[in-house]
Amino acid sequence: MIGHLDSDDASFLLSDLEEDRRARILTKVSATDRAAIESALAFDEESAGRLMQRAFVAAPVFWNVGQAIDHMRSVSEDDLPENFFEIYIVDPAFRLQGSVPVSLLLRSTRDKPLKDIMKEVKATVRPEMDQEEVAYIFRQYNLASTPVVDDAGRLTGMITIDDVVDVIQEEAQEDILALSGVSEAGVNQSVFSAVRARIPWLAVNLVTAFLASTVVSLFAPTIDQHVALAFLMPVVAGLGGNAGSQALAVSVRAIAERDLEGPLIRRAIRRESLTAIINGLVIATLASLVVLAWFQDPRLSVVILIAMASTFTWAGLIGILAPLTIRRLGLDPAVASSVFVLTSIDLMGFFVFLGLASLMLV
Amino acid sequence: MIGHLDSDDASFLLSDLEEDRRARILTKVSATDRAAIESALAFDEESAGRLMQRAFVAAPVFWNVGQAIDHMRSVSEDDLPENFFEIYIVDPAFRLQGSVPVSLLLRSTRDKPLKDIMKEVKATVRPEMDQEEVAYIFRQYNLASTPVVDDAGRLTGMITIDDVVDVIQEEAQEDILALSGVSEAGVNQSVFSAVRARIPWLAVNLVTAFLASTVVSLFAPTIDQHVALAFLMPVVAGLGGNAGSQALAVSVRAIAERDLEGPLIRRAIRRESLTAIINGLVIATLASLVVLAWFQDPRLSVVILIAMASTFTWAGLIGILAPLTIRRLGLDPAVASSVFVLTSIDLMGFFVFLGLASLMLV
Repeated sequence: MIGHLDSDDASFLLSDLEEDRRARILTKVSATDRAAIESALAFDEESAGRLMQRAFVAAPVFWNVGQAIDHMRSVSEDDLPENFFEIYIVDPAFRLQGSVPVSLLLRSTRDKPLKDIMKEVKATVRPEMDQEEVAYIFRQYNLASTPVVDDAGRLTGMITIDDVVDVIQEEAQEDILALSGVSEAGVNQSVFSAVRARIPWLAVNLVTAFLASTVVSLFAPTIDQHVALAFLMPVVAGLGGNAGSQALAVSVRAIAERDLEGPLIRRAIRRESLTAIINGLVIATLASLVVLAWFQDPRLSVVILIAMASTFTWAGLIGILAPLTIRRLGLDPAVASSVFVLTSIDLMGFFVFLGLASLMLV
Repeated sequence: MIGHLDSDDASFLLSDLEEDRRARILTKVSATDRAAIESALAFDEESAGRLMQRAFVAAPVFWNVGQAIDHMRSVSEDDLPENFFEIYIVDPAFRLQGSVPVSLLLRSTRDKPLKDIMKEVKATVRPEMDQEEVAYIFRQYNLASTPVVDDAGRLTGMITIDDVVDVIQEEAQEDILALSGVSEAGVNQSVFSAVRARIPWLAVNLVTAFLASTVVSLFAPTIDQHVALAFLMPVVAGLGGNAGSQALAVSVRAIAERDLEGPLIRRAIRRESLTAIINGLVIATLASLVVLAWFQDPRLSVVILIAMASTFTWAGLIGILAPLTIRRLGLDPAVASSVFVLTSIDLMGFFVFLGLASLMLV
């Protein structure tokens, strides 16, 4: 069955197998297919080299349309890609010169030189390029396929959109999971692997939760005198956490869409800060009115107003600054941001709320 | 400029404009283009009808390859799509019979009847179909383009992969934002619109946070006697909330990928329950050891062990059952699940923890 797949799909299947089983399967496929699959496996797992297929159609730059069509009619179907949308034009050293969409080839007269109808290739993809970068290029230029060239500009493969679509879906799904602290998930995942994919995040959060406990414990005498503070702690930390998650999701999404670059960064930081301040004032005011009605204590009401408004402002700022900083460090913002954002909001919220209370209520 | 875009891109641009500006722009484009754009605007915003373009190549079923190629060479370039990967074969009533990839057309001899090389169209797309469904079909069958047919099976348009790629990216990004309670975001969003996109979720959470406060207030006498309970409340609710967010992200992702259907549902529920129980036992044991070391009170340590283990189990169950139920109600699980999941975990966590404490410590 592997013999009938395009070489990129075959290498995907094989990479999940054990080393010796892989060797056994490779002996069953033809020698040329084997060479193609083995060379694909030589590239990093999430690289353009893994996505690309070795079957593509290339024509010398001095041919005309008729020669290209006759060539395609003459070669065996097995040597051509199952489906292709453009052919590549190369010089005698196999360096890429341009491409001709198959639909254009079809519409051109047989005597037309390929040189006259070929188009400049919009973006250059190298085998070692990250697949996320490849997906970005496909979206940016609305591509259906793209040639892959090596350092010397020689044509080495072709990537088609069907494989890129899977990359786009995977990367977005990875971000969804990563933001919630799950490293891996899938329909066939075992309980053991689900536990392993989630427990590191929970362990980190256990540590940060006890850090928050420690902050609260500093104010034990204040809580002892005003037990209402214990009722309201979840409101301050919970709402601040929500505001931080919102800012974080917006920022991680914008980074993934490449909307947070250059001058747009300053603008986004300004928007997040203002949004946090406005939302903070609105929500903190509502909360302080509820507290006033519940406990009939204006001072407690002022404490929660100030504490929530300042926690919101912090949440908005850290919600965008943390992922930006983590990106600058070369790490994945979706994976590493949540713990800093949510921990700092909890600590900040408890400290300001209980600190203010110990100053104003005692 | 609009005159040079394919009709699907043009209708996308126009849908964002005010009604009267739209009318003015439409008078500037040619009559045929105007008809195409206006009919696209008649479809729902997230439908296949909006994605499809009216420019495609169709050939009668009784033609041969040579006739199809000659036809494409004879029509003006403006009447053909900018790029196309297949042509559609229709009967005299314009009912779709099959398709021929352009690459196959190119390789076939001129006298070959189209009937002999045409392929069955893998999936039928209707103009009213939701764009998410269209994206699923493209991924499922690795399509580069697909015909759109009406109720009577007549060919009405073509959808190409470049527009579907944007849909896939958008839908995934919508899920990321929705899970964090943000209804809309974008690089050009104003502060006002950012506030409006986030404050409803914060308002809902303010209500649920005060619900949690009320539960805590029921146990005021117990907290008064054991202030350590106030320190540990964030640990129980926070960790439970993390476990719930993990289960929720995994389930929402699986629903989006259509991995949660039929017999897979029971299996996923089983996996989530077991994972939650195991993670709960591990994390609760660690937490109870920390508590034992900190407060030297075995009873408090047992209270936090039982409370956390049962909160985790609940978190895992509600994290998958809530989105499944919300999907069954025909709503978007990414949007509506978080509030139920996180509120129920908070209430459950505080109630069990403080309830057990009032039974065991007093």
